[in-house]
Amino acid sequence: MTETKRPWEEVEVGEVHRSGPHRVTEDAIIRFAEQFDPQYFHLSREGGENGPFGKLSASGWHTCSIAMKLMVSGMLCTLKSEGAPGVKQVRWLKPTFVDDELTLVTEIVDKYPSKSRANIGFCYAKHRMEDQDGTTKMTMENVFMIRRADQPG
Amino acid sequence: MTETKRPWEEVEVGEVHRSGPHRVTEDAIIRFAEQFDPQYFHLSREGGENGPFGKLSASGWHTCSIAMKLMVSGMLCTLKSEGAPGVKQVRWLKPTFVDDELTLVTEIVDKYPSKSRANIGFCYAKHRMEDQDGTTKMTMENVFMIRRADQPG
Repeated sequence: MTETKRPWEEVEVGEVHRSGPHRVTEDAIIRFAEQFDPQYFHLSREGGENGPFGKLSASGWHTCSIAMKLMVSGMLCTLKSEGAPGVKQVRWLKPTFVDDELTLVTEIVDKYPSKSRANIGFCYAKHRMEDQDGTTKMTMENVFMIRRADQPG
Repeated sequence: MTETKRPWEEVEVGEVHRSGPHRVTEDAIIRFAEQFDPQYFHLSREGGENGPFGKLSASGWHTCSIAMKLMVSGMLCTLKSEGAPGVKQVRWLKPTFVDDELTLVTEIVDKYPSKSRANIGFCYAKHRMEDQDGTTKMTMENVFMIRRADQPG
């Protein structure tokens, strides 16, 4: 299944991927919040209206999870991905609201080999999630582990 | 509904909250991955066995989302929370596997007033997610916005 996927060597610093749009429904916001972030302002329209943002907003972790989905469909599905060691930072600049249509813009800004694992390399990515009006909702930076072509095992 | 919740002034630097355990099922791992992180090693037992961790593992964003759930039930439900501006960093040190029982340990390490919003204050928290054996799976740092008691609106 990885035959047509690119190894680390073929990733280019400066490459940009756009993925989306992903439309966010009221039902999805509430279902995510019930499972993972049951604060009143994520759980109902009424709660949102009485909360800090004045209307129902998605959990920031929901926006992150949608970003991951868009990373997979936009960029990672083209790569021999082996996961990620973590996240450098996330900034929730604006809340995600019902009917927002989210697009993730990812730029590879650096790449370097692993010192401890000869068969993988790292790619440093900066992500920006924007809505249908071009407003930036969230920025994120992280590192991906990508399999190398020229190394065994 | 916030009558019995603590304002920012009552949060103490050094307070520690433990929340959990939360047991992670195979079904939950696969359902989260299908929605948000459809990489083959998160989608089935077979995929996991052929993947970088040798068995089915949860999306790192699933572990983050479980951490959020445990933050809400452990600490945030005691506070006049107004959300968070982002996440400072996440380190996925070990994957989350089927039947792991996760506990979140949160320590408030700093607090400071907002310069732009007189009615909130910030609390800086360090989190550690551990499993049933005490192994640290993930660390995370973030900042919470908490409503102040002594300020209007």
